Amino acid sequence: MARVSHPRSTCPLSCALDLLGDRWSILVLRDIVMRDRHHFEELGKDEGIATNILSDRLQRLTTAGLITKQKDARDGRKRYYAATERGADLIPTLLELGLWGANHAEHSEGDVDLLGRSVSDRDGLVAELRDRALNP
Amino acid sequence: MARVSHPRSTCPLSCALDLLGDRWSILVLRDIVMRDRHHFEELGKDEGIATNILSDRLQRLTTAGLITKQKDARDGRKRYYAATERGADLIPTLLELGLWGANHAEHSEGDVDLLGRSVSDRDGLVAELRDRALNP
Repeated sequence: MARVSHPRSTCPLSCALDLLGDRWSILVLRDIVMRDRHHFEELGKDEGIATNILSDRLQRLTTAGLITKQKDARDGRKRYYAATERGADLIPTLLELGLWGANHAEHSEGDVDLLGRSVSDRDGLVAELRDRALNP
Repeated sequence: MARVSHPRSTCPLSCALDLLGDRWSILVLRDIVMRDRHHFEELGKDEGIATNILSDRLQRLTTAGLITKQKDARDGRKRYYAATERGADLIPTLLELGLWGANHAEHSEGDVDLLGRSVSDRDGLVAELRDRALNP
């Protein structure tokens, strides 16, 4: 279970936001879970995340069991971040929030194919992304 | 369109989080959109939101067109906050994040009927909640 010491209420949405309610956590997860990015220097890069914030969020997400941190099999000096089942279970939330952003947020330029499939073949897309996230 | 002056990137998810990525905005929306709460003193109450934070979030959500602020028809001294179509379009995100919280967040105690229907009859539930949110 994700560990949060002082939940604001027992509402599942509130409990989820105790952990994920900030500007960066979900974007770091997006990169690991949906963009096949697994190294520190690749994460949050498009949005210019500060390294101290990235370190903090990776620590929180690891402690909460949404990602794992391992030695990179190809380069032992590097760390490799991978999604867990708990992290991959956020894929439907990422898709829905992305779809909302594509429809309603200014400046947004989405991947048209991905957004289309998240409407026309939602279950298939979730299964495919989940499989890819858990078997990178 | 939701107005954010300095988007971090054009990713729809990032643009959505420019507006909604904090601990409170989505909870305030939950109360208006899904819990039929419409007055200042009812919003964020279960989680003990501070009044200055609530004022700020209501202002942001109103400016971004997710909610409207009107005079209460039954008491002209009060303000009545209601969901717009843009706000109601977040219902699928709220359901998915709530479902994730129910499955994975410690301390979470969800509405079992609602969570069950968000799996077994997702489209029906979204339509029903949307209709209720837009016709309170």
